[in-house]
Amino acid sequence: MNILVVYAHHEPKSLVGSLKNLGISKLQEMGHQVVESDLYGIGFHPVANVYDFQTLSGGHFNYMLEQKYATENSWSYSPDVLEQMQRLQAADLVIFYTPIWWSSVPAILKGWFDRVLTMGFAWDSGKIYEDGLLRGKKVLFVGTAASPEEFYQPLGKYRATLRQVLHPILHGTLAFCGMDILDPFFVFSSMNKTPEEYSAILDSHAQAIELAVNNPHYLSKF
Amino acid sequence: MNILVVYAHHEPKSLVGSLKNLGISKLQEMGHQVVESDLYGIGFHPVANVYDFQTLSGGHFNYMLEQKYATENSWSYSPDVLEQMQRLQAADLVIFYTPIWWSSVPAILKGWFDRVLTMGFAWDSGKIYEDGLLRGKKVLFVGTAASPEEFYQPLGKYRATLRQVLHPILHGTLAFCGMDILDPFFVFSSMNKTPEEYSAILDSHAQAIELAVNNPHYLSKF
Repeated sequence: MNILVVYAHHEPKSLVGSLKNLGISKLQEMGHQVVESDLYGIGFHPVANVYDFQTLSGGHFNYMLEQKYATENSWSYSPDVLEQMQRLQAADLVIFYTPIWWSSVPAILKGWFDRVLTMGFAWDSGKIYEDGLLRGKKVLFVGTAASPEEFYQPLGKYRATLRQVLHPILHGTLAFCGMDILDPFFVFSSMNKTPEEYSAILDSHAQAIELAVNNPHYLSKF
Repeated sequence: MNILVVYAHHEPKSLVGSLKNLGISKLQEMGHQVVESDLYGIGFHPVANVYDFQTLSGGHFNYMLEQKYATENSWSYSPDVLEQMQRLQAADLVIFYTPIWWSSVPAILKGWFDRVLTMGFAWDSGKIYEDGLLRGKKVLFVGTAASPEEFYQPLGKYRATLRQVLHPILHGTLAFCGMDILDPFFVFSSMNKTPEEYSAILDSHAQAIELAVNNPHYLSKF
């Protein structure tokens, strides 16, 4: 399989960093091709703007319609966007490694969604969800949160389950483009782990990676 | 009242831009003090990182704990973060003007949440929701979406209501810091308005602004 890892943490020694390193090693051991987009490492610029396009339609500047125009004009995107689109196009499985900040992904990863999941390429008018242009690709979302699991309950502090908190990302964004969403791998209370717990989390992640790659029924209903 | 407007659109001629201009004029006519943070205009950098702090704790770099450390050390943040924190601190009401992209705010605004709603200032350990450090401030969220309203239904394309889609922002982020969330002003199908509809939307927004400022019971339960 061709696997794209999109990594959104600034600290290599973080739990997210450890999970990502383990995931990549495990996948390579299994003989898969892994490409890593280390968003902090490459200084990915997350702000959608006019400079994302090499040519403009000339009309009123609407970001979505400029995406459509650029896609139809030989993918005339700026090189940094184009590179991510090509990596995504080549991938059978995309794994996101990210902390959860403010019930969502960090801005650097939100900007990857904004700039890379372009109209005409990832989706189009009438080409969403089961007809989305990225159908056939799988997504594994790996996240960590400082908050405890008890916050993520209908009557917990967040007044929402983890599934509901991640819904705008997994359903509203990734499934929108037609991708199949695997069960997320998620760690709560990420700052309070003993060495034994830390090591158990990594073991469990290695198993999740194996399942994600080998078990076609390991699908979630996001 | 002191009102902070946080504006997150790159195109002044957009509907979001028109709503924002109208809102500011209306508030100024009413005699209120308005400060505008035009995130695209000031080139706000949304990526949380080590350069957000003028001094570091020296420990393992954990963004949240560095925020806490900086807050306790004379707010030793980088000048761009500090300026936004001071504007927020001075505000009685914060109005966000933003498009909805991928069921959330653009990266430039997500990064404002990530970098400005800092630990020790906006919230703290045990100081969240009704005890959040920004309690007493109100929030009016003004958003536009290209998608039609029918997508935002439990059985619609998004499999979620608007309230559920905005929950991570309004409840998971802004209410988390103790702010009171007013009923959002929201426009669906934002790209398909006739001149008459456009003008009716602006009129209705002027009324919403008046209510938000004058009616203390105009509170939502986000």
